[in-house]
Amino acid sequence: MTISTNHTSQAARSLARRSITFESSPWSEAWELIQDKPDAIYFGNGAPARDAQPVERLGEASAKAWQEAAGALDYGEIAGYEPLRDLIADRMRLRGIDAGSDEIMVTSGSQQGIDLIARLMLNPGDPIIVEGPTYIGAMQTFDAYEATYITAPMDEHGLDPAALAEKVDALGVAPKLLYTIPTFQNPTGFSLSPDRRPALLALARERGFMIVEDDPYGELYFGSPPAPALRADDPEVIYLGTFSKTIAPGIRVGWLVAPPSLLDLLLMAKEGADIHSDRIMTRTVFYTAQGFLDEHVARLRTLYQSRRDALLMEMVRSMPSEVRWSTPGGGFFVWAELPESHSASELLRMSAAQGVAFLPGSWFYPQGQAVESGFRLSYSSLPEEKLVEGARRLGRSVHDYLQQTR
Amino acid sequence: MTISTNHTSQAARSLARRSITFESSPWSEAWELIQDKPDAIYFGNGAPARDAQPVERLGEASAKAWQEAAGALDYGEIAGYEPLRDLIADRMRLRGIDAGSDEIMVTSGSQQGIDLIARLMLNPGDPIIVEGPTYIGAMQTFDAYEATYITAPMDEHGLDPAALAEKVDALGVAPKLLYTIPTFQNPTGFSLSPDRRPALLALARERGFMIVEDDPYGELYFGSPPAPALRADDPEVIYLGTFSKTIAPGIRVGWLVAPPSLLDLLLMAKEGADIHSDRIMTRTVFYTAQGFLDEHVARLRTLYQSRRDALLMEMVRSMPSEVRWSTPGGGFFVWAELPESHSASELLRMSAAQGVAFLPGSWFYPQGQAVESGFRLSYSSLPEEKLVEGARRLGRSVHDYLQQTR
Repeated sequence: MTISTNHTSQAARSLARRSITFESSPWSEAWELIQDKPDAIYFGNGAPARDAQPVERLGEASAKAWQEAAGALDYGEIAGYEPLRDLIADRMRLRGIDAGSDEIMVTSGSQQGIDLIARLMLNPGDPIIVEGPTYIGAMQTFDAYEATYITAPMDEHGLDPAALAEKVDALGVAPKLLYTIPTFQNPTGFSLSPDRRPALLALARERGFMIVEDDPYGELYFGSPPAPALRADDPEVIYLGTFSKTIAPGIRVGWLVAPPSLLDLLLMAKEGADIHSDRIMTRTVFYTAQGFLDEHVARLRTLYQSRRDALLMEMVRSMPSEVRWSTPGGGFFVWAELPESHSASELLRMSAAQGVAFLPGSWFYPQGQAVESGFRLSYSSLPEEKLVEGARRLGRSVHDYLQQTR
Repeated sequence: MTISTNHTSQAARSLARRSITFESSPWSEAWELIQDKPDAIYFGNGAPARDAQPVERLGEASAKAWQEAAGALDYGEIAGYEPLRDLIADRMRLRGIDAGSDEIMVTSGSQQGIDLIARLMLNPGDPIIVEGPTYIGAMQTFDAYEATYITAPMDEHGLDPAALAEKVDALGVAPKLLYTIPTFQNPTGFSLSPDRRPALLALARERGFMIVEDDPYGELYFGSPPAPALRADDPEVIYLGTFSKTIAPGIRVGWLVAPPSLLDLLLMAKEGADIHSDRIMTRTVFYTAQGFLDEHVARLRTLYQSRRDALLMEMVRSMPSEVRWSTPGGGFFVWAELPESHSASELLRMSAAQGVAFLPGSWFYPQGQAVESGFRLSYSSLPEEKLVEGARRLGRSVHDYLQQTR
């Protein structure tokens, strides 16, 4: 018996409210603008440099991992391979964090960490705070839990705790959590200044919201190291780390640090989500990182600093003087701003035709709260000559756009 | 600055309603009953045989996967490695399913498939149907979406569609979906009889609920193959498959088949959950399965049939005649039932002291809907001599228990 009619319309009526947020992917929207142009330069890709991925070492580490696989292919290790958690605990000391391996769980990238935290904490409609602008993927996840957003004001010193306090008071809401990337933020490249950190921690305690600190870029600094992580000063901060930027994103290994009472609940949340992560890859990452990651990260710092410099130097040459941009002390992103009342989305339509594309800043805000004038340039995955040529083309596009709107 | 007081109590007040379901793990509860007894026999482990995991072949396949890793460590392949999806499409023909690779997505085990479906379809409080009894891990996931449960009556011919229709009518609710394991069910070992299948598909269309068919055991039959999958007869059925039982669970590779319009939404749901799965392991599974899995599965059938036989034969010898049990035609589980008004949980307390443990049937029902007399015996992970000795001990325990309650 084969039934040939279909009841997809019935299925569509049965979907959850949140399903409207699954209707499009921001990443593919951006990419589609230029995918048919072979020589286009795409500043939208926030991935790490492909040529810096330690593929050979990963392959050797994997061979080692398979040698001990005989006991490691059953169900198990929800929290992750213990030697890897110990190694993570050691590495986090570089970010000022003192956490035991019993406060750490391995996740399928820090994206899963965001998902598990949202699962543990959010009822539909719960208010949460995000930076304006913030990481698109975090909003994708929070959308799935039907969060409502409070956008925290930001400037070049990062999130502004005083302005946030005022905003929360004016709204009269009790936010459940703040999601923040305090160091080399995505998309702005800004870092939270040292004097704002105690104010933010105090505000969180006073208003009773959890801080979720996402720190994918903290180790990738240029010149002097950044301020320690927020988690260094407050063990109640939930911290998210990842090997996506320092090793490779395709391996999907990140981690989460939480107070033990919450970690136990997060582990059970993970058990329901996917039982546990691939046990061989966690071993592979351990053998890769051990005795190698420090020098590898040092090389990455030099690489990304050179790329940032190449981009910024050409921007100085090519960009009209009305445009301002950040000078990130680390990470992957430059944030640029057109003069007020100009739209980066309009600029994108012109520049894509001229063979250069980027992500408009409006995409990095919760729906209905967007600012139109900013845009993000990612220098992490492009070689220097592409960065220079891209900045030149972009400079011409901005000139044309400003000319047109004068 | 280090803040030493803590506000965990504040955090606890802020948790989502669903977090109460993260407070304990059924798996560790069962294990803890006997973990301090070195010679105890544990029928609770539903994992596949460790000695049948193709570790060496996996390691070789992994080496091949790493040879092509240079282009595969960026973000990408949300739907999964395409050659693996093609291989899955081919293998599913053995279950009567005709689906293209564009209807298939790879998941981190079928557990993640359940999670993504729940994420797409369920608002808090939505009614869903599960078999009574059903897979514990599925309820763990549905609990996280605050589903309410309708328990479908079952007998040795599987779920009873007529009884389910009556129950749904009596309750006056419109269920969103049915989660079913129609072939060699967990925990009963029962299969849905061929004559009930069209009735179930018709009921789903009539009442407008989706069928989610979980099929981890369909290939592991003893003697003649089972009826084709429900998905074989209705392309609107969402189908879940996994390599956990045929290769190994620790690798976390499963898949999901859905109508294309739903698959697109499920892919975006996955993007928010963990972006995508480990790209090397999906290649490793492809190279492992290619040209090997058919003969491997044939060996597994023989292995598990011998184990089932060893257990059942000793049960015939040792078990009091008042106890009844299933004779599964495949899969990993025997379901046994004590005489009415007896409790398998009480039996477990006695038998654990005598060095044998199992999972009481009450754990396999939604809260408040449990039947106390059944229990599950898993023969998949124990060698024959342990199965025989375990059945002997269990027989004695049941004798003692029935004696005591007479």
